[in-house]
Amino acid sequence: MKKQPTFRYMWVYNHFKQLILSGEYQPGDKIPSIRRCAQLLQVSKTTVESAYMLLETEGRILSKAQSGYYVTAAAKIRSAPPSTTTQPQPLNTVQYNFATRGADKHVFSFELWQRYLKSALRQQERLLRYGDVQGEFELREAICQYVQRARNVVCTPQQIIVGAGVQSLLHLLCPLLPGERTVGFYTPFTQGEAVFADHGYTHLPQSSAHILYVSPSHLTPYGSALSLSQRFEILQQCRQQQRIIVEDDYGSELCYARQPISSLQGLSGGKGVVYLGTFSPLLLPSIRIGFMVLPQNLLSIYQERRQLYNQSASQLEQLALGHFIANGQLESQIRRARRSCLQKTTALANALQGTFGSRVNCLFGDGGYTLLAQFCSNSTPHRLAQLAANAGIALTPQKFSPLGQPGLLLCCSGVDTADYPSAAKLLYSAIAPAIGAK
Amino acid sequence: MKKQPTFRYMWVYNHFKQLILSGEYQPGDKIPSIRRCAQLLQVSKTTVESAYMLLETEGRILSKAQSGYYVTAAAKIRSAPPSTTTQPQPLNTVQYNFATRGADKHVFSFELWQRYLKSALRQQERLLRYGDVQGEFELREAICQYVQRARNVVCTPQQIIVGAGVQSLLHLLCPLLPGERTVGFYTPFTQGEAVFADHGYTHLPQSSAHILYVSPSHLTPYGSALSLSQRFEILQQCRQQQRIIVEDDYGSELCYARQPISSLQGLSGGKGVVYLGTFSPLLLPSIRIGFMVLPQNLLSIYQERRQLYNQSASQLEQLALGHFIANGQLESQIRRARRSCLQKTTALANALQGTFGSRVNCLFGDGGYTLLAQFCSNSTPHRLAQLAANAGIALTPQKFSPLGQPGLLLCCSGVDTADYPSAAKLLYSAIAPAIGAK
Repeated sequence: MKKQPTFRYMWVYNHFKQLILSGEYQPGDKIPSIRRCAQLLQVSKTTVESAYMLLETEGRILSKAQSGYYVTAAAKIRSAPPSTTTQPQPLNTVQYNFATRGADKHVFSFELWQRYLKSALRQQERLLRYGDVQGEFELREAICQYVQRARNVVCTPQQIIVGAGVQSLLHLLCPLLPGERTVGFYTPFTQGEAVFADHGYTHLPQSSAHILYVSPSHLTPYGSALSLSQRFEILQQCRQQQRIIVEDDYGSELCYARQPISSLQGLSGGKGVVYLGTFSPLLLPSIRIGFMVLPQNLLSIYQERRQLYNQSASQLEQLALGHFIANGQLESQIRRARRSCLQKTTALANALQGTFGSRVNCLFGDGGYTLLAQFCSNSTPHRLAQLAANAGIALTPQKFSPLGQPGLLLCCSGVDTADYPSAAKLLYSAIAPAIGAK
Repeated sequence: MKKQPTFRYMWVYNHFKQLILSGEYQPGDKIPSIRRCAQLLQVSKTTVESAYMLLETEGRILSKAQSGYYVTAAAKIRSAPPSTTTQPQPLNTVQYNFATRGADKHVFSFELWQRYLKSALRQQERLLRYGDVQGEFELREAICQYVQRARNVVCTPQQIIVGAGVQSLLHLLCPLLPGERTVGFYTPFTQGEAVFADHGYTHLPQSSAHILYVSPSHLTPYGSALSLSQRFEILQQCRQQQRIIVEDDYGSELCYARQPISSLQGLSGGKGVVYLGTFSPLLLPSIRIGFMVLPQNLLSIYQERRQLYNQSASQLEQLALGHFIANGQLESQIRRARRSCLQKTTALANALQGTFGSRVNCLFGDGGYTLLAQFCSNSTPHRLAQLAANAGIALTPQKFSPLGQPGLLLCCSGVDTADYPSAAKLLYSAIAPAIGAK
């Protein structure tokens, strides 16, 4: 079983750390230049640079201008990043990572994004000041045009509030919502539930709470979406009972199975629905920008309170993203991501079926990078996931699966298509005993 | 009186907007290339590029690859960014802006920061995944070493939680704090009070609340700091009454008047104090990164809850900042900023005294870019600020000033030293009647 780190730079980093800790390199010794090291280890210069950066951040090496990299006096004394609770996951045991919800590196162009960041960096005068509390105007205007076109959302830029992801926005939203402080979640969403609880909300079953939180394109972790008639039904019920809907439109952009369905906000004509969107899963998870569209009655409450809050999202990334969307790059990105979702989930299902035959049952939603693999077995999903983890495959056990069989969620955005057959074989050898295969 | 926009690119933007609205440019017309326009208007290409970017974002012009910029069909119909509540401040009426708390462009090096961002962008594998909920480890390690050295804070990287500014961190902190839900503010801080109120806290006078929120280096808007003996007194009182201190160390880095005094957290040995720090005022206000240091008892509560929350700060900026701090750049930046604070506030006070003579009384704190100018007058501070604003000078009225006279706060980070004499003269002609001068 291969047990090498997934990230090449971590391998280079570990290599040098070992040499330093074992005393092969002494304080003051010069280590190879980036170019030389890349030649020696047969890796790219970028990889070496990342590794050296990490060693430097840890104080193990020091770069001297026009000279090179040297081992510091403190290199051996300083312990490695300690404590299991705060350290990055032990990546070096994972060979195939189907557990992370990251972006697909073949879909997202770093070079393109870097150009937009560089262009935004030129707006020095703006970056030197505190930005608009509600979000940079250009970004809100670009978002407005995009959600009108793509999600049928009814709004003006004035109704849009930008923030560092859904949780930051919910912290702003909770104090604005009028009426009874009860919330129900159409499907469980731990991180949303936490924020409402922090603001003193009581959780009730979704049919009886004053606030209904619903993610129409993310009913299941594998991306099932509400149909149009289901959407109308929810809207009608909530309107009759004068309940407020918080629509978290997570995942709607990656819908490949059918034409994307209008947002609830759009179907309601913009009344009684707060619309939430985020760009993290679509671009880079590390870009922490989301937005919400407030209906007019909540907007006026927000306007009175807006000076109480700071903007939480990076202004630089806001400016870059505003231009990125206005230039149509977001929509090209979405088209590429949809194709990639469809292609990768299909390829993964084929690989699993080719290996497991009738012992596996693969289930897709309407979009996204995740599929549910169900196995005919008496083992628990947790047990299967544990066996897979022992073999170097990270994936997520699924408690409830439609067939009542133990299920595993596999998100394929982070693993290349070419690796699926060997990943499927490795999974087979890991869980074969537990699913009654030999 | 000059009434030109402060930002050159806004001037170019307005120029073309006028030409389009007046019909001199018709839909389909080609506008000059960036290079040509820069020559024509005698401005830099960057300026033109920013203006065109804004016009493009508003849908007035369209760039065609390898061809140039064209006026769109919708250029005239589309109204300019409407509504006063969400639009940027009307910058074109402000000639001298002493109201903004931004960074000093002569202190902060965009080029340097851009290099760190570019270097961080190379860590593609990491940026494709969700980062550490608590903040990137390298950044926390760099912060840890920095606050130990510079602020005497007692901590490990495990105790540090990174977030998008103080408010985001307070949203995490409020649910963790044990005991009675009452909070007192040593000095008023509207944005902090708002978050505690959102979480159901009752405000009490600072001497009787269970949680004491204190900013030891920002007792006044002009940067007065608590002395060492005052700090010990507060610590002793809170320890006796088993109250919890939330120490917001805003502004401590810009202290130029004396050696920076240890944080309360450090003086307490790390017990009973939550330490909050932010990088926004020091680097760029647009970088939304702050951090808090939790004492051990709160840390264990946080650890149980950490999976409930997402990280709110941009991962890219976290990685760049981590490396920036580890390389000693933050501390060089602080040294430069301190010198600049001292030099600029002194120059501004000299300019005011040179113009107003005995009619002004300038008051400094212990650090920062802000000074308080007090005038012997029966007018209200608000009236004086209004007169200044009418003349094109933005500044902040100060309700309570030590001499009981109407006071104006002037923050000098955004105005060049060379402009102080003419700004002082303009201020004099604006408020002379109200302060009994002719």
